[in-house]
Parts: sequence; structure tokens; C-alpha cells
Amino acid sequence: MSGDPDVAGRIARSFAKQGIMETIGARLVRVVPGEVEIELPIGPRVSQQHGFAHAGAVAAIADSACGYAGLTMMPADAGVLTAEFKINLLAPAAGDRLVATGRVVKAGRTLTVAQADVEAEEGGRRKLVAIMTATLVAVAGRDGVSD
Amino acid sequence: MSGDPDVAGRIARSFAKQGIMETIGARLVRVVPGEVEIELPIGPRVSQQHGFAHAGAVAAIADSACGYAGLTMMPADAGVLTAEFKINLLAPAAGDRLVATGRVVKAGRTLTVAQADVEAEEGGRRKLVAIMTATLVAVAGRDGVSD
Amino acid sequence: MSGDPDVAGRIARSFAKQGIMETIGARLVRVVPGEVEIELPIGPRVSQQHGFAHAGAVAAIADSACGYAGLTMMPADAGVLTAEFKINLLAPAAGDRLVATGRVVKAGRTLTVAQADVEAEEGGRRKLVAIMTATLVAVAGRDGVSD
Amino acid sequence: MSGDPDVAGRIARSFAKQGIMETIGARLVRVVPGEVEIELPIGPRVSQQHGFAHAGAVAAIADSACGYAGLTMMPADAGVLTAEFKINLLAPAAGDRLVATGRVVKAGRTLTVAQADVEAEEGGRRKLVAIMTATLVAVAGRDGVSD
Repeated sequence: MSGDPDVAGRIARSFAKQGIMETIGARLVRVVPGEVEIELPIGPRVSQQHGFAHAGAVAAIADSACGYAGLTMMPADAGVLTAEFKINLLAPAAGDRLVATGRVVKAGRTLTVAQADVEAEEGGRRKLVAIMTATLVAVAGRDGVSD
Repeated sequence: MSGDPDVAGRIARSFAKQGIMETIGARLVRVVPGEVEIELPIGPRVSQQHGFAHAGAVAAIADSACGYAGLTMMPADAGVLTAEFKINLLAPAAGDRLVATGRVVKAGRTLTVAQADVEAEEGGRRKLVAIMTATLVAVAGRDGVSD
Repeated sequence: MSGDPDVAGRIARSFAKQGIMETIGARLVRVVPGEVEIELPIGPRVSQQHGFAHAGAVAAIADSACGYAGLTMMPADAGVLTAEFKINLLAPAAGDRLVATGRVVKAGRTLTVAQADVEAEEGGRRKLVAIMTATLVAVAGRDGVSD
Repeated sequence: MSGDPDVAGRIARSFAKQGIMETIGARLVRVVPGEVEIELPIGPRVSQQHGFAHAGAVAAIADSACGYAGLTMMPADAGVLTAEFKINLLAPAAGDRLVATGRVVKAGRTLTVAQADVEAEEGGRRKLVAIMTATLVAVAGRDGVSD
């Protein structure tokens, strides 16, 4: 854990600065040490051509969930950047809403690895629709990238 | 090539159905056999917390560029789905706009592999900011997934 | 599950045909529906330049563990091929031996997704050193690729 | 470029310490700034169950090609470690030998991104059978990881 007693507040403020999250309608649901949850209503605003949520929208919330999960384990003055991620789309992202849960697998001084599960919820039932593995970089003291 | 003389028109109509592309402000620029280009203005609408374009927005246009590049090589009645992609973010996605160029590396009966370069343009100069490799699935005769 | 009562025997015979496994000294440890375990002694035979197990050796056992885990869920006449995998190396692969455990995440008619954890064991203690996500293709009735 | 006039010699000596390369029969073919080539005869020693080269063997030479390509751009006292790689297998790795060519895409202070093409050669003709993208970490002054 970052040792920052206000890491949840810091992440909420950082999330509020992610214009893309407001644009697509995503919401920060939960922040605990090493784990962050983000939800996204499925609809025309984020659709691909068949009406499912677009892989880019799925990836956007999974990436933010991974990144902020990683940030909960970094020093209080660190910012977080994504070096790379891979996502496997297991099933069409159809239903009422998506829930991405990011979890830290390995927290390192420079690199942190996190994974996210993305579930689609329809009528209260959840189905796993995507899994992501991401490599995150802790950045400190660089202008413009604090969180 | 798909043998469909109107593949460019078909892709333009499919792209127009991708709600996410309108939501983030992306535009289909170019369609030729095996290659598709999509652009995205960089701004608050697609930003992450440091003001760069969010990795999810970068991934969204790169994924669509890969998918539609793949579709140019598929039969006229096929739809395309993304099985997985991986993206490496090489540099902050800063500047005026992003241009994602998707190219088919290997077109197969079931699976097609494509790669995308994403460049950030600022004042006319371009810089490579991300590379993606994607696996696409050709789907035929399944309700709701024609393109 | 594949419905093949002898899937474990079939996998053992297939594993025995993987020349690379004998070459590097890997051993099939456990086969249950949806899960396969492979071990590899760490030593000069599989080392990289710093004396750790080479990422290629780590990937080799993780890929076979994923592939055979997938095969346990496929029809009895199917062969399995890897379409792609991604591996994150979390820590140097140092110690006495590696244990790769592959698990099916999603079994599909055409594509199956599996993940593997690779742990390094030293003096009885285990440490997670790598994670893999792989996409597998079930191939049937193609010469030379039955398992 | 690393500024090290003997980077090719340094890489040859490092390659010679990779036990796995001798075990599978791989050979360092070419080192130039930003690009490294490694070849591997295809045969029972590196086979999977259908007689093709195993994905782990393909990945092993592609990873070393990427890593050493990256090392040509790093300071003379740096060692190189692989943080992650992803490989897409485009076609069965069949033929006489494999040639993996690693190229640096982006050289950074901490992280370097490289890509490799792996071609299978049969009777003088070459076919692209795999593509890899890897993230490399430059490590300096850590015991045991100089190159």
C-alpha cells in the first residue's frame, strides 16, 4: 500500500480528470489497496457496429482499473502510466453494464503488473467477457504526470 | 481482397454504426485493401488524467483500424470480431490529433492478424506513440454480426 | 470436459512427442479437466546469460500447460494449436525448478483462452515469476495435427 | 547506439552464456545497431507434438533477438531483462530452419520496445511464421545481470 492515507481520495480526483471516462459514461465504483472497480453502462454511446460495447471501451475501463489499482501501491508522489496491455475478448460485451475489476499481481519499484476482469451484467447475472494484463510504470517528479 | 467491389462503402456504413467512434470524435480517413486509417482529435473529450489521450481511446481507434483492415480481406458476407489485442504505448499521446493505421499481416480463413501504428501529429510533424497487434475472427451467418 | 475418458493418457502421449520438452528436461506432472501442470528443473540447460531460466523456457512450459489444459475441454478428435500468447516476467526465474499451471478461462468451439501461472520453487518455497494468457485453436481433421 | 565499440562482441559473449541457445541449437547470426538475427534448425530437438517447432522454441529465439537488439542501444554497463512479450503464431513453424530478426522500435532510458519477425526457411524460400512485440528493461549496477 502506498502509505498515503488518502489514496482513495487521490484516485477519485485523478479519475475525475480523465475526460474519456465522463465522455463514455464510466464511474469509479470502489478503491481498496491493490484493487479498483469501474463500471460502464452498455449502450449506443460506447457501441461497436453490432451493438455490443466496443473493445476500445472495454479496454478503457479495464486499463483505468489496472492503472489505479497499481497506483494504490505506489508512493504518494507518483504518477502512473501504462506501458502496455493485452486484452482477450471472451464474449460479446452485451447487457446492461460492464464492471471492470483491476488487481495488482506484482508491485515493483519501477514496473507494476496488474490484471483486470471485465464482467457484463444483465438482469443481475454477471458473465466474464474480457481479461486484461497490463504493465504500469511509476513516474515521479515529472511535470504533468502526478496523480 | 474480399472480392466485394463495395468493401470501402460497406466499411464506411459499418463505421458509422460504431457509436463509440462518434462519441470520441473519431473519423474514418482511408480504406484500401488490407489497410485502414482512422483519425482522432486529441482533447479533453478523450483525455486521461495528465491531459494526454487515454490508452483506451488510442486502443479504440487502433482496434477499429485493425478490424476494418481485416474486413477488407474477408468474404462479403462476413462480420469481424476482435479476439484479442495487445498495445504498447511508446510515448504520451500528445499533440493535435492521432492517426491509427491498421494493416493485415496474415489473412486466414478463421483468424486474421493485423497490426496498427498510432502516430500523434503536432504542427504537421508525426511521432509514433503506440503499436498494436490484434487477432480478428471472421464470423459469417451469425445474427447481428454482419458488417 | 472432452468426454474422452482417456484424455489424460492422450495428453501424456502427445506430451511425449514434444521433442522440446525432453530437450529442456520438462515433465508433465498433472492433468485434470481444465488444468495441466508441467515442471522444469532450473539449470544451465535452460539458462539465459545471468543464470536464470530463459524467458523462452518459461514460455515453453507455460504454453504447453495452457495448450493441454485447453485440449482437456476439446472433442476427442481435436488437435490444439497456439494462435498467440503473452507472458509477463514478474521476477527472475531462479531456484530449483519451475512449475507452470495452465487453466482454461473460456472454452469455445473454435477458440479457447487459457492462463498459466509459473512459480519458481527454491527450498520448498514458491514464488510467482510469470503469468501467461494464451489463445488456442481447436483443429480437427487436419493431417498431422491430431493430439 | 550504445557507444560501446564492442557491442557486437559483448553480445556474442553474452549469447554464448545462454545455455538454452546451445541446448536447442540456436546460433547468433548478425548484430548491427538496433537489429539482431538468430537462427534455429527445425527438428525433433525443438518440436511440438505435430513435428513443427514448438511455440516456446520460436519464442526463445525471438525473445533473445529482441533483447539483444535492445542491448545494442543501451549503455555499455547495462544488462537487459525482458519484462513481457507477446507472440502471434501465424503459420506452423515447418521447414529447414527458423530465422528470428529483432528490431528496436523505441529505445528509452528505462524501457525499450522491440519487435521480431520469425521466418521459416524451406529450400531457400522464406515464410513469415510469427511476430513478437517485447518490452525490455535496462538494468545497471545490479549483481549478476550485466551483459
